[in-house]
Amino acid sequence: MLVVMDAGARPEQIEVVVRHIEKMGLKAHPIPGANRTAIGITGSARTADPEVLENFPGVKEVIRVSHGYKLVSREAKPDDTIVTVGGVDVGGNGIVVIGGPCAVESLDQTRAIAEGIKRGGGQLLRGGAYKPRTSPYSFQGLGERGLEILARVREEFELPIITEAIDDESIALVAQYADCIQIGARNMQNYSLLKSAGRTRKPVLLKRGMAAMLDELLLCAEYIMAEGNYQVMLCERGVRTFADHTRNTVDLSIVPAIKRISHLPILVDPSHGTGKRNKVLPMSRAAIAIGADGVLVEVHHKPEEALSDGPQAILPDEFARLVRECEAVAQVVGRTLQPALAAS
Amino acid sequence: MLVVMDAGARPEQIEVVVRHIEKMGLKAHPIPGANRTAIGITGSARTADPEVLENFPGVKEVIRVSHGYKLVSREAKPDDTIVTVGGVDVGGNGIVVIGGPCAVESLDQTRAIAEGIKRGGGQLLRGGAYKPRTSPYSFQGLGERGLEILARVREEFELPIITEAIDDESIALVAQYADCIQIGARNMQNYSLLKSAGRTRKPVLLKRGMAAMLDELLLCAEYIMAEGNYQVMLCERGVRTFADHTRNTVDLSIVPAIKRISHLPILVDPSHGTGKRNKVLPMSRAAIAIGADGVLVEVHHKPEEALSDGPQAILPDEFARLVRECEAVAQVVGRTLQPALAAS
Amino acid sequence: MLVVMDAGARPEQIEVVVRHIEKMGLKAHPIPGANRTAIGITGSARTADPEVLENFPGVKEVIRVSHGYKLVSREAKPDDTIVTVGGVDVGGNGIVVIGGPCAVESLDQTRAIAEGIKRGGGQLLRGGAYKPRTSPYSFQGLGERGLEILARVREEFELPIITEAIDDESIALVAQYADCIQIGARNMQNYSLLKSAGRTRKPVLLKRGMAAMLDELLLCAEYIMAEGNYQVMLCERGVRTFADHTRNTVDLSIVPAIKRISHLPILVDPSHGTGKRNKVLPMSRAAIAIGADGVLVEVHHKPEEALSDGPQAILPDEFARLVRECEAVAQVVGRTLQPALAAS
Amino acid sequence: MLVVMDAGARPEQIEVVVRHIEKMGLKAHPIPGANRTAIGITGSARTADPEVLENFPGVKEVIRVSHGYKLVSREAKPDDTIVTVGGVDVGGNGIVVIGGPCAVESLDQTRAIAEGIKRGGGQLLRGGAYKPRTSPYSFQGLGERGLEILARVREEFELPIITEAIDDESIALVAQYADCIQIGARNMQNYSLLKSAGRTRKPVLLKRGMAAMLDELLLCAEYIMAEGNYQVMLCERGVRTFADHTRNTVDLSIVPAIKRISHLPILVDPSHGTGKRNKVLPMSRAAIAIGADGVLVEVHHKPEEALSDGPQAILPDEFARLVRECEAVAQVVGRTLQPALAAS
Repeated sequence: MLVVMDAGARPEQIEVVVRHIEKMGLKAHPIPGANRTAIGITGSARTADPEVLENFPGVKEVIRVSHGYKLVSREAKPDDTIVTVGGVDVGGNGIVVIGGPCAVESLDQTRAIAEGIKRGGGQLLRGGAYKPRTSPYSFQGLGERGLEILARVREEFELPIITEAIDDESIALVAQYADCIQIGARNMQNYSLLKSAGRTRKPVLLKRGMAAMLDELLLCAEYIMAEGNYQVMLCERGVRTFADHTRNTVDLSIVPAIKRISHLPILVDPSHGTGKRNKVLPMSRAAIAIGADGVLVEVHHKPEEALSDGPQAILPDEFARLVRECEAVAQVVGRTLQPALAAS
Repeated sequence: MLVVMDAGARPEQIEVVVRHIEKMGLKAHPIPGANRTAIGITGSARTADPEVLENFPGVKEVIRVSHGYKLVSREAKPDDTIVTVGGVDVGGNGIVVIGGPCAVESLDQTRAIAEGIKRGGGQLLRGGAYKPRTSPYSFQGLGERGLEILARVREEFELPIITEAIDDESIALVAQYADCIQIGARNMQNYSLLKSAGRTRKPVLLKRGMAAMLDELLLCAEYIMAEGNYQVMLCERGVRTFADHTRNTVDLSIVPAIKRISHLPILVDPSHGTGKRNKVLPMSRAAIAIGADGVLVEVHHKPEEALSDGPQAILPDEFARLVRECEAVAQVVGRTLQPALAAS
Repeated sequence: MLVVMDAGARPEQIEVVVRHIEKMGLKAHPIPGANRTAIGITGSARTADPEVLENFPGVKEVIRVSHGYKLVSREAKPDDTIVTVGGVDVGGNGIVVIGGPCAVESLDQTRAIAEGIKRGGGQLLRGGAYKPRTSPYSFQGLGERGLEILARVREEFELPIITEAIDDESIALVAQYADCIQIGARNMQNYSLLKSAGRTRKPVLLKRGMAAMLDELLLCAEYIMAEGNYQVMLCERGVRTFADHTRNTVDLSIVPAIKRISHLPILVDPSHGTGKRNKVLPMSRAAIAIGADGVLVEVHHKPEEALSDGPQAILPDEFARLVRECEAVAQVVGRTLQPALAAS
Repeated sequence: MLVVMDAGARPEQIEVVVRHIEKMGLKAHPIPGANRTAIGITGSARTADPEVLENFPGVKEVIRVSHGYKLVSREAKPDDTIVTVGGVDVGGNGIVVIGGPCAVESLDQTRAIAEGIKRGGGQLLRGGAYKPRTSPYSFQGLGERGLEILARVREEFELPIITEAIDDESIALVAQYADCIQIGARNMQNYSLLKSAGRTRKPVLLKRGMAAMLDELLLCAEYIMAEGNYQVMLCERGVRTFADHTRNTVDLSIVPAIKRISHLPILVDPSHGTGKRNKVLPMSRAAIAIGADGVLVEVHHKPEEALSDGPQAILPDEFARLVRECEAVAQVVGRTLQPALAAS
């Protein structure tokens, strides 16, 4: 924390601020400059927030320096975390390509798509049984029946499963059926759900909220880890901006930014990120090129009949091409394609 | 829905689109123009999303026309909804001023602040017992003990209570103790929570998410109403933009925009909206001037000792001035200050 | 400037940073904390930017403290600046209401509208002779012919004129014909134009760019003042966000933020800010309620025939009502309506 | 244009809208739906803007369909445009890597950096002689002396030059000395400057503004082309969002979006886009992976002494690695590295 005083702040105003800092159990370090004085603050406040100093006479602004996260930080754990999802490593040298339908609609649909994912070289299957939809009148997912379908298809194709949980009821079932619990963008700051996910012992895929800053994303991962679950993966899925040529604006620069600060794996979802089928393949290549640990894409064998998000789903053949191109880009950055599990 | 074809789209491409629209059970209305053809779509799709047409050959873009909300709309209910919170009407001709601490910290603190709210002319008391905090290491609220304090203070000062619920456990308790359930910005799209709130018979105050569009906010209210609870109030609390002179950017224009489309009351929270104590009063006046049904402000008798959000809390005396100025502005727009309940 | 070191930064890394700061002719103030060291920097760098320290080993981040503006600041001039536009004071106790067409289209049109402005109580006339339009195929304004019309209408109605300049050629003519030079949002950071405006001796109305931060707006005003022209007024006209219920998002909180830092007058343009006729009046009231020194609105006697921006123009009768309501709100905040010049 | 009527709009209200459309010389196509009527509009309005219909009774909203650009569009010219900059093709199968200092500081500095660019495999040299700086007190460039330095260095290393023009005076000199005129982000909508650039016969590199939508960027290119200069290249350099881990947010998805709509080449500037030296290399790889025609990066041999933007400049050796990695990624997408001119 740094308190910057007005150019014309009087010595007694500086003194009041210093004394208040000390009253909070913190240490004040005045730094007199040519035009103004700044006051550094060290120590950690248990009971009150030094930002209130902003309202003291003679104070120009208060600048926050510390970020508040611990377990997610490279300072706490310098080496990359590798999360193992049903036998497939995420976050190591091999990149992963995760595919599947937006929503599980039926056994036949899920089998058809899973077959395409496996054949195309994908290592993990995604698909929603619980769908958070903008409208209460849209299809909300098959619920536990969807989880059963996913579990059956996993056995058939040896594709570990990632699927979203949206509340305490669904998280218990997802933890029971699936290999990885997804927390969606809209629930990124649903702290009750994060704590519940932290109390399971399943890997968690945490998606960045539509307007989440890097620090907030990391602090949400911290919520999960603070409960004792260290198997957390992050996922960029586009943020909301004024731009209207895509549904969201994919912020790829968060990938190297996360890598610098945190040891957690980071994936990119180009399907929700762009919302446009024709941009999924190029954005996937870009994600691997910038250093992501993998991509998460929506695949549908009949996108024009999909019950949700058909406009952004790619076909199984496009998925196979996407895997090949991601593998080629991975080699440029000194990585490989993570091998898929052997089909049983 | 409107499908816009490329200037060079061939007649057979247009024909394919028209046939696909009809296959979806919808009606296609081709509109030939000088340069290109557009195709209007009417009817409502049960099974698939016409946006997939964007991927058809010859299609330039698909433009969404319908908004999907029903119960929240003035088309469904032309007259303003008045929500009664513990005997105080919100949404009628009288504006309300709601005050209280960010977090309930103790009985003494809450009593001291409530006394200031009542004395200053506020009609309702706000205060958090369950606090969604960015960091897992921050104070998370007193929980049920906080609700008990609020309930005691309500009896003493005749101030009905608004307090936030964050999950199924807390919503049951909040519905039991409080007069109005608040759904916070981070949980705006926590649809499970919205449905739970819709199944209570308590008024709900729904805050706009940090990056929520108007349609999304209305559809979240629709989630609550679709469960049979029509007592919903909306609240603008600032959205996230690049601007850094305030914590969030208050988007006051949503007030007249909501009033035009919806019959629900809309309030403004200048405390979270600006994050700066010195901007709470002017922003409150502006909120009433633009037509809001009231404001929701954080008040603390010792902001520099507050356990959360002290930098944006105003003092009880500033609150009293805020009520007076809001009342004066209300008169300019032909409204009054809603009377507070008579103290017992 | 504050350099924050990594928690694990080694003493010799800290030493390298300190030495580099000193090599830049600055003074380094190390502040050792429990977990990490921060280094305050004082003095002002002539030749290089201390932000490069961000790339030094062991450095976590560099935080900018100083803002770089001088003449615009209240630290340089504590008292409010009053700018006199053709005899009308802007920035004092009286608020101003400026109206006129988006574009000057003809003498008849401008006279008809000016008559409405004068009758309605407006003090200044705005109208574009040089129009920066998104498309090269849109109407670009009448140029000098438009300035002549404005000048004739000024004489007839005693309404001083504000009109936009877009380049060196137009600025010379605008300075010759008009009472105030407007710099539009798209040209806010056209520094050549700002310098040219600074070399005239006419008042300048500087509009905030669509994505301009407060500091940037102030530094653009500083460009004008650094050339010796101190007659600068600022104008909020909406910023670009994801929100789609208005054309732009009016950021009213910049008004008190500017007032705190700068002595310059600040106006609000609710017409461009909202882009919707039905939101101009409520937003104008809100602007005055939050403390703006006036509003700038588009008025057209036949908006459905306007050559540009018809959808946001209000009718002369609505303008008269707007003036009355702004005056009523001004009284609530202890201000008055600035008197118009007596008609000749 | 599509006019959507309220659900409860009366037939006579629809009739009024239809008649007004026809009065504008346009054709109205009513589309009655189950709940509401929409009215398609075809033809092109010469005199007024159909968006005013939004203010007519019974109208819910007006949706803009047409985009207004012509010459930049693939509908006007299906094949990719190749722009030749001093003998180097941009926009064909070969990607280009453009490097150089933010600002030309001296002959020695520019020579040292140019030598690194040439040795590293770059084909074009960038460097600013006219610098638009946020503060009037920052280094503003060497002006014509800078252009002379660039020209001398071009001869020595056979590196064609791209440099920014900021007004009419500088554009004449830039057109005389350089091989390509850069229009910076802050001047993207400086239409006078765009027209001046359109009247030269030099290639133009047009950077996207900080809050520019795709349509606006294309319409700015249209301004240049409408003057008869078809040698236009576009450049994504990051947009402004709430995210604070980079200086701007690079919106890579605009690359495939532009490619779909326009025949013009599109480059990416990862230096301004990220503002962080450690993100320039990964973002460059991502830019090529998504389909950009090249990248534009800041290089400095002594970044810690640079007079501007040192924090984002990379070293010559990093540049050489960047060229190699971009070439490797180019091969994955079926492209090559454009050969540099043979040194004389």
